[in-house]
Amino acid sequence: MPKLRILSKHEDEYRRLIEAANLRDLKILPAPGLEADILFGEPDHIRAVLASFPALAWVQANWAGVEPLLDPALRRDYILTNARGVFGPLMSEFVFGYLLLHERKILQRLAAQKEQRWDPTLTGTLRGKTIGLLGVGSIGVELARTAKFFGMRVHGFTRSSETCPDVDEYFHADLLAFVSGLDYFVSVLPNTIETRHIIDAQVLNALPKHAIFINVGRGSAVDESALVRALETGAIAGSVLDVFEQEPLPAGHPLWSAPNTFITSHTSAPSFPEDIAQLFIENYRLYVDNKLLKYVVDFERGY
Amino acid sequence: MPKLRILSKHEDEYRRLIEAANLRDLKILPAPGLEADILFGEPDHIRAVLASFPALAWVQANWAGVEPLLDPALRRDYILTNARGVFGPLMSEFVFGYLLLHERKILQRLAAQKEQRWDPTLTGTLRGKTIGLLGVGSIGVELARTAKFFGMRVHGFTRSSETCPDVDEYFHADLLAFVSGLDYFVSVLPNTIETRHIIDAQVLNALPKHAIFINVGRGSAVDESALVRALETGAIAGSVLDVFEQEPLPAGHPLWSAPNTFITSHTSAPSFPEDIAQLFIENYRLYVDNKLLKYVVDFERGY
Repeated sequence: MPKLRILSKHEDEYRRLIEAANLRDLKILPAPGLEADILFGEPDHIRAVLASFPALAWVQANWAGVEPLLDPALRRDYILTNARGVFGPLMSEFVFGYLLLHERKILQRLAAQKEQRWDPTLTGTLRGKTIGLLGVGSIGVELARTAKFFGMRVHGFTRSSETCPDVDEYFHADLLAFVSGLDYFVSVLPNTIETRHIIDAQVLNALPKHAIFINVGRGSAVDESALVRALETGAIAGSVLDVFEQEPLPAGHPLWSAPNTFITSHTSAPSFPEDIAQLFIENYRLYVDNKLLKYVVDFERGY
Repeated sequence: MPKLRILSKHEDEYRRLIEAANLRDLKILPAPGLEADILFGEPDHIRAVLASFPALAWVQANWAGVEPLLDPALRRDYILTNARGVFGPLMSEFVFGYLLLHERKILQRLAAQKEQRWDPTLTGTLRGKTIGLLGVGSIGVELARTAKFFGMRVHGFTRSSETCPDVDEYFHADLLAFVSGLDYFVSVLPNTIETRHIIDAQVLNALPKHAIFINVGRGSAVDESALVRALETGAIAGSVLDVFEQEPLPAGHPLWSAPNTFITSHTSAPSFPEDIAQLFIENYRLYVDNKLLKYVVDFERGY
């Protein structure tokens, strides 16, 4: 009989949601529950106790990013699955909220309003603009779909895959060529050795001056000193940053006050318990039937 | 041979766009061009000279709202067509820009950023929220489609039509019942005698307290004094107002500083000349073939 330990700040809510699903054979253990074969929760919570579960067979993380569990010093004798699919629509709301803020000149109109000044300045539009997605996984696919909904042109940069029908043009090798034609440049990259500081001064300088950079992947993909310089010198027009090399972003960090920059404190796609519980429930039904789980993480690749 | 006069502040641009289409038999007249049978341009420009064109057969307005030409004292011995279809996507960008601003707490996060304060406050989401459309014409249909894209529930209030597949529930008679279940209430109503002050204190008080009111139709549909009171007393949570009983909204008007209110100076869906010229070109091809024109306005109904 499968035994589950929930390791989460939302433990009570997850327990309630999972119990409501009446899953076959599942026993949810109280703390410490060291005989569990399944762990479910936040990767950092799980990391802290990972060594204590001798029968461990499966870990379902409730985040997309599972860096805490990828440390080569940690055990890897279990199946690790992460949360996917649920974040794409939330990320789309985030990204397109800021794109529309920019195009519709919402802050400028608000400034005019404060002066009680009628401001018929013509609005911009997303239609016809080009968005570039650095990474076209489950989140990138959803961003591409939303961009097409709004009549945008979509460029995608991937290692080799070209499977998303909403991407108009794929790039694989030349990152500078990829960014040079963009109005909006969105990084959805995970934190891996290969992505570290891939967005550097050269890439930022290759963007058009009117381009906006949005980071909803991981902060490690960006050379933040180069980004501050690009913003301060006007090499790019602005940025929307949800993730950082160090989180929380320390007070005094120059990104807090960089020109035309929005700092959003890693809130772009929260793990809503009702979404994540559903994902666990689906995967549990596969687990109990000895079927292949969904969203299995490759420890070497890192996602 | 059809003869066209363009009466617009964008006359040169329209002329260039229309000439580029090489329309069969069309002659574009210079001013004053009183022998024209076709007028094309802004309704207020056209109104000023409407009586001067004895051969007038067709007026293509480049706005959706044609109030200036509906005055019963004016001639009605011609076919009036307005601009439709092109505004829906622009209105969608506008409405959903402000909805996302609200859900994603963009201004609150910006305030935290000014204090260099990491603010992990959970975000809201459009998914599962209910939007109510007062008027489901070509613009309402597009708003409904966008709302469904973002996973919202859509209620529609119409006289009798129930043709939009993206509306989950229709209302026809009871406006108070319609608004009582909404998170977002959007008026897309034109300016007609029947719509005047239809959004009054009773309607505003029937909205849930957390609801946001958005007006992208015409200002005349709203009792603005009642709206100011509803905002000041917290009967509703906020408003986004693109249109007003008097435009420009006069300095000193209490709406400028009403709580949680955004004043956007009639910019929600500009008439981009490339869109409107295209619409004229399509209608001209019907006109020269003696076919029924698209977007014909009913002078009595007013749209």
